[in-house]
Amino acid sequence: MTKRSFAVIGGGALGGLYGGMLARAGFDVHFLLRSDAQHVRQHGLRVDSKLGDFHLHDVNVYDDADAMPACDVTILALKTTNNDLLPRLLPGPTGTGGTVLVLQNGLNVEADTAAVVGGGRVLGGCCFLCSNKVGPGHIRHLDYGRIVFGRYSPASEPPAGCDAEVESIATDLQSAGIDAHTTDDLWKARWRKLMWNIPFNGLSVALDASTNTLMDDPHATELITAVMQEVAAASAACGREQPADAINKTLDHTRQMVPYDSSMRLDYKAGRAMELEAILGNPIQAARQAGVPMPKVEMLYQQLWFLQAQTDRRLSAGC
Amino acid sequence: MTKRSFAVIGGGALGGLYGGMLARAGFDVHFLLRSDAQHVRQHGLRVDSKLGDFHLHDVNVYDDADAMPACDVTILALKTTNNDLLPRLLPGPTGTGGTVLVLQNGLNVEADTAAVVGGGRVLGGCCFLCSNKVGPGHIRHLDYGRIVFGRYSPASEPPAGCDAEVESIATDLQSAGIDAHTTDDLWKARWRKLMWNIPFNGLSVALDASTNTLMDDPHATELITAVMQEVAAASAACGREQPADAINKTLDHTRQMVPYDSSMRLDYKAGRAMELEAILGNPIQAARQAGVPMPKVEMLYQQLWFLQAQTDRRLSAGC
Repeated sequence: MTKRSFAVIGGGALGGLYGGMLARAGFDVHFLLRSDAQHVRQHGLRVDSKLGDFHLHDVNVYDDADAMPACDVTILALKTTNNDLLPRLLPGPTGTGGTVLVLQNGLNVEADTAAVVGGGRVLGGCCFLCSNKVGPGHIRHLDYGRIVFGRYSPASEPPAGCDAEVESIATDLQSAGIDAHTTDDLWKARWRKLMWNIPFNGLSVALDASTNTLMDDPHATELITAVMQEVAAASAACGREQPADAINKTLDHTRQMVPYDSSMRLDYKAGRAMELEAILGNPIQAARQAGVPMPKVEMLYQQLWFLQAQTDRRLSAGC
Repeated sequence: MTKRSFAVIGGGALGGLYGGMLARAGFDVHFLLRSDAQHVRQHGLRVDSKLGDFHLHDVNVYDDADAMPACDVTILALKTTNNDLLPRLLPGPTGTGGTVLVLQNGLNVEADTAAVVGGGRVLGGCCFLCSNKVGPGHIRHLDYGRIVFGRYSPASEPPAGCDAEVESIATDLQSAGIDAHTTDDLWKARWRKLMWNIPFNGLSVALDASTNTLMDDPHATELITAVMQEVAAASAACGREQPADAINKTLDHTRQMVPYDSSMRLDYKAGRAMELEAILGNPIQAARQAGVPMPKVEMLYQQLWFLQAQTDRRLSAGC
């Protein structure tokens, strides 16, 4: 039996780490890269990780999705702000039957992929990792690394449950050293992660502060807690009740984290588009449809769009 | 009949302008100043105003409240963040029967004064002016100048109505060229002004933007409108229904204003304490007591306290 083949779309902090670990384990991995393609072709992919450093010298690199072979699984590790590219990027590596594992932040982010390849071929996953790309083809993995993934189904349908393909892919990821777990309710897992992402991504930008600076301040912690309560209430209204201790666990967990700039803060500081629709806009819409507004999350969303617009204006003015 | 005597506590943008206009008109005016006392004693008080520039060379200046004569009316023009000083500052100029006109921003800010001199001797007023202190004893009055004032009564009591003393003080202020108006419901006037103060003071700091930059952005304008709706609903729940067109009028009015840094933004930029309790904390408490929470205003309050704490930390660290 031949090993499963993987395409990895995006060679950033996430795709570089997980794709690199799969390649190191002997899987047939094909990377679609943009700016780093030439560098990785020549110098390989370097991963500094608390799980062990490694350097892959011979990497299958593509800068054209149509040149890629059809793979069993395509790991989508692009920011959602690039999802308008999916109709061009996915047909090559997914071929006529390949599965897509969407490792993107936010809620219902699989819908864009499902629109291209069909809903039945889409899995989604939440990643819990602190990892940064520190240079071309060079990933620094700081902490954590867990993936929780499962089969995608539209919000209106019941949880998709688990199946043999999901379990088998989990086994492959685990065999490569990845801390992979399956879920039979992807929406619940996504809402659970949003309980961290919405307050910490959002407020770290709106208040220009790292997670530990926020957690050190009583007013910020009170606000973070209030935002989490809104997200938990919206999750419950959408049929995904979270455990009663989810808020306290998330706060405790964050207190123990290494000081960390959220991905949204890194994007904002670098003048890149923030994932505002995936992480805030889609949950706001889902909550409204369920009849439970999230006033503080809405305010955060509006503040972040204002800040994004100010940044875009500064950049286009060249100052 | 002798003219009314006035004490002015605080020679900033507000006390300097109105006190200066009263003195120019021949009223007996006594200023309590801190850092500017020596300068104004020597060089007088200079007011550059769109209503006409003037320079008072002979000003009654005190740096000790107990040395002041008892005056008919004491105009309180200090920031509310200094209200802990009132028990030391008010007894001298108010004597045994003088009235205090509290020209401070916020809600129920008269309570601190009432605790010192007794509720029956307290008036409160809202000022609508763009004025800055640009140097020692030097005020620049940019735009507007209206005062709406009336008799103070605790929130639990019915509106205090108008009376002969209030009308007579209004006549004096008008005779000095001040655009003074009376109100028979001070709480309603204060809530009405908060519809501007809460969103524009608060968001200009939280989003680091001037009023016109906020009004130019659709997300910020949407958020400002939502915050105004919360304030209007809280005002109504506290028994002070605002006119149906209040929000649109306030937005239109702000669009027509000269680009202006709110007083809270000026305080924040200068590293001074912001008037968070007067402008946000007290209204939040009143709204809660009336059973109508203001989630976005609460969020703004928590964000501003976080920013205040970060500033205080930076200043105490000397960087």
